[in-house]
Amino acid sequence: MTTYTAINLKQRPEPGPIPASTFEVVQKALPSAGPGEIVVKQTYMSLDPAMIGWMSSDTKSYIPPVALGDVMRSSGTGEVVDSNHPDFAVGDRVMGMTGWTEYFVSSGQGLNKLPAGVDEEQALSVFALPGLTATQGLYGVAKPKSGETIVVSGAAGSVGSIVGQLAKADGLTVIGVAGSDDKCQWLVNELGFDGAINYKTDDVNAKLTELAVNGVDIFFENTGGTIQQHIFEHMNAHGRVAVCGMISDYASSEPSAGPNWIPIIKKRLMIQGFTMPDHYAQVPELLAKLTPYVMKGQIKYRAHVLDGLPSAVDGLNMLLTGGNKGKLMVKL
Amino acid sequence: MTTYTAINLKQRPEPGPIPASTFEVVQKALPSAGPGEIVVKQTYMSLDPAMIGWMSSDTKSYIPPVALGDVMRSSGTGEVVDSNHPDFAVGDRVMGMTGWTEYFVSSGQGLNKLPAGVDEEQALSVFALPGLTATQGLYGVAKPKSGETIVVSGAAGSVGSIVGQLAKADGLTVIGVAGSDDKCQWLVNELGFDGAINYKTDDVNAKLTELAVNGVDIFFENTGGTIQQHIFEHMNAHGRVAVCGMISDYASSEPSAGPNWIPIIKKRLMIQGFTMPDHYAQVPELLAKLTPYVMKGQIKYRAHVLDGLPSAVDGLNMLLTGGNKGKLMVKL
Repeated sequence: MTTYTAINLKQRPEPGPIPASTFEVVQKALPSAGPGEIVVKQTYMSLDPAMIGWMSSDTKSYIPPVALGDVMRSSGTGEVVDSNHPDFAVGDRVMGMTGWTEYFVSSGQGLNKLPAGVDEEQALSVFALPGLTATQGLYGVAKPKSGETIVVSGAAGSVGSIVGQLAKADGLTVIGVAGSDDKCQWLVNELGFDGAINYKTDDVNAKLTELAVNGVDIFFENTGGTIQQHIFEHMNAHGRVAVCGMISDYASSEPSAGPNWIPIIKKRLMIQGFTMPDHYAQVPELLAKLTPYVMKGQIKYRAHVLDGLPSAVDGLNMLLTGGNKGKLMVKL
Repeated sequence: MTTYTAINLKQRPEPGPIPASTFEVVQKALPSAGPGEIVVKQTYMSLDPAMIGWMSSDTKSYIPPVALGDVMRSSGTGEVVDSNHPDFAVGDRVMGMTGWTEYFVSSGQGLNKLPAGVDEEQALSVFALPGLTATQGLYGVAKPKSGETIVVSGAAGSVGSIVGQLAKADGLTVIGVAGSDDKCQWLVNELGFDGAINYKTDDVNAKLTELAVNGVDIFFENTGGTIQQHIFEHMNAHGRVAVCGMISDYASSEPSAGPNWIPIIKKRLMIQGFTMPDHYAQVPELLAKLTPYVMKGQIKYRAHVLDGLPSAVDGLNMLLTGGNKGKLMVKL
């Protein structure tokens, strides 16, 4: 084999489903490692809601958009297949920012080796962006205390499911909001959430009254939408809102209105948006915080694995509609 | 004279203008001071937007509502006319929580003496709730840095005008939002704001583009309404929003929608609601922070003085419509 496949961003998506014409599949000549470089063969490619934002033209966002004609940005795992780098040997398993490509050349910067005993699916489901984001948002922003109540939206998603399990392990009452009965059952029966709300079919306000008997101290927001107003009404004084994602709005031509701000004053709420690129320097501390929970078996996950690079486009649309069950990734 | 007038809260107001029937004017027998007590004759009574909230039945708010049949709650200044208290002499001028009443008995708790050289109008306009709230919100929540840009809504109001002047003294670019050309001219010509926006007649977005050339770092929110979305669009990364008041919504039967939350993530905004009762213990530090600006002549104010206790009802409605010019108070 002398060529490999990569997928470039060809045009910026309009709001709504992302068509295949957004991307261009290209064949490239297989590279070799120059001085100080490695060549990585990607094994699993992570699909994350943040990628929708990276495709937009908003240059004021937290990281620059992917340039048209460039390989689509993503994280993933891979295996070193060629090395002129003192720290990487052929056969090493690595993870980091990879892109929609079967092979890539790297200086090694930003790539970390997978610890022994951690397989690729667990790496991308727990130790990569989802786990880092969950850990930063929960401990760096929301600052949970045992005995408090947390509501997590997008609770069956890659970040939300970890947030809920960390909070549960810390002694909080954990309520998840998700979009299907199957997801709600998984949260309660498999992950040990205290309760779950199907926002598509339940009376959200009534369910919050039933489940959050002492009110809500923390709202971990992954989705956006009308649940915001309901949860605001149930927040306690000095409640904290960690704003991690707005997946329900990313592909909408008309972003939904937010809740009125009167509860922000009456309850002295603190609302903080955050994104991981601000916190890359803290990754070692975040991993140190997260790993003991994983080692104790407190962080379960389910990986939703698609097959082959071209399936990534369908995967993005799954994220927009909530069609994925668990951490979405592509096996190459 | 053996009796005095007080005004009790008789019923909870509906959204909209506050009718006189909300209150009951009563005559009471003039009290004398018991052991350890003082009798205070109120001289000026402060009217503040927060009072609208105190009249509602929302027991989950930051302080309990005024009970039906109780004297309406307010702050003010007064003169001690009878004293059995070692720390207060007849003739002492005091300020603190007073209520809608010509006279009241007090243990002295929560009452502070007016410093020499500070008259009653300045005391209520600067050193009472408005100045304490402005100081807490600006320094405790928004944390301004020289060179940054702040937008203040309700900028001609009692809190907003002090916030803007403090920020200007600290080297920020200060933009005020107000509801009349007269107020906007006062902000720029008298208080030294860098610019002002009349939200009723200006194209808010275009004016922000013109005035906030480096974007907005701090949004000090006193009013609510559609300006929120415009200011969100102009916020810089890591911007801070101090949520102090929502006067435009307090009397509305249908509170306005808030802005969509996508900018909260993209710009990692921090939004914090605050109210002074959480910070009464810090009043000495807040006064220590505020006083030097006043001594240097950096905090101008204008008092809007109504005459006589019954005018307080009209005063509340002025606050709702923005009809007052400057710090509203009632001279008794």
